[in-house]
Amino acid sequence: MDEVEVETVADPELSDPVLIEGLPGVGHVGKLAAEHLIEEFESELVRRVYSEHLPPQVGIDEDGVAELASVEVHAVDAGRDLLVLVGDHQATETVGHYRLAETFLDIAEAFGVGRIVTMGGVPTGELVEEYAVVGAVTDAALAEELGEIGVEFHDDEPEGGIVGTSGLLLGLGARQGVRAACLMGRTSGYLVDPKSARAVLEVLEPFLDVEVDFARLEDRADGMEEAVAEMQETQGGSATAGEDDLRYFG
Amino acid sequence: MDEVEVETVADPELSDPVLIEGLPGVGHVGKLAAEHLIEEFESELVRRVYSEHLPPQVGIDEDGVAELASVEVHAVDAGRDLLVLVGDHQATETVGHYRLAETFLDIAEAFGVGRIVTMGGVPTGELVEEYAVVGAVTDAALAEELGEIGVEFHDDEPEGGIVGTSGLLLGLGARQGVRAACLMGRTSGYLVDPKSARAVLEVLEPFLDVEVDFARLEDRADGMEEAVAEMQETQGGSATAGEDDLRYFG
Amino acid sequence: MDEVEVETVADPELSDPVLIEGLPGVGHVGKLAAEHLIEEFESELVRRVYSEHLPPQVGIDEDGVAELASVEVHAVDAGRDLLVLVGDHQATETVGHYRLAETFLDIAEAFGVGRIVTMGGVPTGELVEEYAVVGAVTDAALAEELGEIGVEFHDDEPEGGIVGTSGLLLGLGARQGVRAACLMGRTSGYLVDPKSARAVLEVLEPFLDVEVDFARLEDRADGMEEAVAEMQETQGGSATAGEDDLRYFG
Amino acid sequence: MDEVEVETVADPELSDPVLIEGLPGVGHVGKLAAEHLIEEFESELVRRVYSEHLPPQVGIDEDGVAELASVEVHAVDAGRDLLVLVGDHQATETVGHYRLAETFLDIAEAFGVGRIVTMGGVPTGELVEEYAVVGAVTDAALAEELGEIGVEFHDDEPEGGIVGTSGLLLGLGARQGVRAACLMGRTSGYLVDPKSARAVLEVLEPFLDVEVDFARLEDRADGMEEAVAEMQETQGGSATAGEDDLRYFG
Repeated sequence: MDEVEVETVADPELSDPVLIEGLPGVGHVGKLAAEHLIEEFESELVRRVYSEHLPPQVGIDEDGVAELASVEVHAVDAGRDLLVLVGDHQATETVGHYRLAETFLDIAEAFGVGRIVTMGGVPTGELVEEYAVVGAVTDAALAEELGEIGVEFHDDEPEGGIVGTSGLLLGLGARQGVRAACLMGRTSGYLVDPKSARAVLEVLEPFLDVEVDFARLEDRADGMEEAVAEMQETQGGSATAGEDDLRYFG
Repeated sequence: MDEVEVETVADPELSDPVLIEGLPGVGHVGKLAAEHLIEEFESELVRRVYSEHLPPQVGIDEDGVAELASVEVHAVDAGRDLLVLVGDHQATETVGHYRLAETFLDIAEAFGVGRIVTMGGVPTGELVEEYAVVGAVTDAALAEELGEIGVEFHDDEPEGGIVGTSGLLLGLGARQGVRAACLMGRTSGYLVDPKSARAVLEVLEPFLDVEVDFARLEDRADGMEEAVAEMQETQGGSATAGEDDLRYFG
Repeated sequence: MDEVEVETVADPELSDPVLIEGLPGVGHVGKLAAEHLIEEFESELVRRVYSEHLPPQVGIDEDGVAELASVEVHAVDAGRDLLVLVGDHQATETVGHYRLAETFLDIAEAFGVGRIVTMGGVPTGELVEEYAVVGAVTDAALAEELGEIGVEFHDDEPEGGIVGTSGLLLGLGARQGVRAACLMGRTSGYLVDPKSARAVLEVLEPFLDVEVDFARLEDRADGMEEAVAEMQETQGGSATAGEDDLRYFG
Repeated sequence: MDEVEVETVADPELSDPVLIEGLPGVGHVGKLAAEHLIEEFESELVRRVYSEHLPPQVGIDEDGVAELASVEVHAVDAGRDLLVLVGDHQATETVGHYRLAETFLDIAEAFGVGRIVTMGGVPTGELVEEYAVVGAVTDAALAEELGEIGVEFHDDEPEGGIVGTSGLLLGLGARQGVRAACLMGRTSGYLVDPKSARAVLEVLEPFLDVEVDFARLEDRADGMEEAVAEMQETQGGSATAGEDDLRYFG
């Protein structure tokens, strides 16, 4: 096996596709949002990226069949063409992060991608009441465009910048002349957060001129809230105590 | 020394051998099972794999002689030919895991291996009463075959998939067209577990049509139980307290 | 992207420049001092060093624009020519540290640098009353020269030597025949320390025959002290208790 | 700089030299013993090994002069020729350990070394009353030879084998046909232990037919004991409590 291997599963012709990235991270906001796009629209697995920089492990599907750790690229027909990057893993060390991000940019280029949107979460450390979306971009004009549809830009948020694929696709993409934005939903950081994923997708709608049905994400959010409420009761905690408890099952 | 070096110790002709892997892991279930096969049947060391991805250390045998960390491959005559992979170590980092697993697949191919069984443990976090075996496979037909002889397949077990050589031999093997199964004995995760190793071997018997004598594994299990009982008494613990204490000498 | 990539932003002719290094480290002493030089004098960004050994992340500027992790080299006109190395990151692992330090030395050589000053902090573990500067050098004559302008040399300080770029530029530089000194301000190690940065720059003044205006660093130090005082009050701590508290917001 | 660089400082002709290794490790037993040999006999620095696998740092000598992390090889005239390996560091990661050990073996071969002795400590976890030396070897005949001069060989000591250069020189050396022994002094593991270093050297005397003056090591041991006694008093501890306290200043 080479250091990074790209398996071509399908090779559809796409029209001006936008690359959307949603790998695991804070609150799994990006992952939930990306998976929602794949599930809601007609989609087709087009590439699998294997790499010795991904964790040395297999996942197991519902039939007990093992699948080598990979990042998948799906072609999604959301009215306009999207190329959605999902998976259960990121690289395990520094160099691997760079090598994989470059591979993703190569794939994007081969499909004629002109714009990239990466998605993730910003940890706030407390329960989030209003699901705002914070942005970062490769050029100031994109920031203006996103600002007009409600994305917030703050000098110091996320503190320390953006780590991992969501950040590198902007940093390396900019050097290759690709325009890219990162949309980060505010989230406590303690829980998988479908509501924050929805907030990110609600920005994506006007930005990419697509329309998303959120019923399934809502169900998922309701399920999470019930689970949280149950845990709070089990622990005999009041609502206030419950908030603190959330820290412990992220 | 090359990154990975395979030393040929013997080169017997084997007939349709099955590769059996049992490197260290949860409860040392796979390691105990693999070593038991080597000890119970006529066996011959055929390959030693050295690598700068294995820990930089030597083991010391009963004569005080140091042996460089390695993975050993033994040819075992269990009525049918087996090729058994054992050792005291796995790779220390991500890339090394991939490189070693590929080497093991190359060795398997050179011996004409058509099927692989990897063995390990699934941690349950509590003392195990019934020694069930959980499976993962490279194709659904194998899952069916194993299901008929009592192996359990669960959507979410082991949670997060299979890490290390046991997983990679399935993930990388499948890409090379080798059929492989992973048999994982449930085990507390706190103790070396000969009973769980026996449970795994009891699945191997009908699956590979071999017959194993378990007397020595039973002795080992009895020895473990006495040691545990002693520790519980020393610590003045009741049976219940004892169960908790087990957490601390895994 | 190559392992290390040097982007040429500008290529001015410099006269006998001194390389000054101030990457992040203890108390951010070196970073504060280097940034102060860039801000106080006329300066021009001349090189950007990108590397897959730097953390896989982007920083975000005040317009929300992401910038790939890099080390910057600025040409600074401080009466005499300086080449100042700054950034938010060092390499993440051992090999990367060596590769980046070698790149910095290559850049220095290309600009005709004959002398190097690296800057950092020595942690004392307690609040510092007198801001002394400790030195290390590539040759004893430099130690004598620095000793005459107040730099202290102690057999065992910093204990264990100098880790990271500040140390490697001396160690690797010496092997290439470059004369270099490391100036380390004593600092508690718990706080970003503009006063210690000033102490280092006050040594630089006679050493390089430059004159530095410290007004902005003083403002910054005042701001820090107010923040510390506030925190002490908020926590209801007396002056003495406050000193201990400092340990927790470094 | 190459991955590993060997600097030739001197190139004396040596007669049947024995390579003695004493890099940092448990109780610094090997390091103390190796340094003692260099100090007690006429010795000459012959090689310096630099590597990007050594920590990215410099040490500082008594003149304030920085020295890049390295491993040094000294030719020592102890009646018979020795080649003594010392330094303040070992490699920082797995692959680096192998690469450096191979370099040391290359140097040994170039000097015509036929035998290697590596030195270290075995942690016992409690204060040591009798300073026994435990051994490991590349061939059983050496074990017999060492057993006759008091070295102990135990099936399970050190538990888990020998990690780092002391182990690799045996493991890799054996594969190249070099005879090697590792001498490990029992030591608490909490303190730098000159007495254990002396015990190791006392085995070396008959083994290599050399005679060592231990006055300086004794002084050092006395100094350590006084320091320990002082600490015990300062902490108001009784002799018994003191023993426990030792755990905390290793």
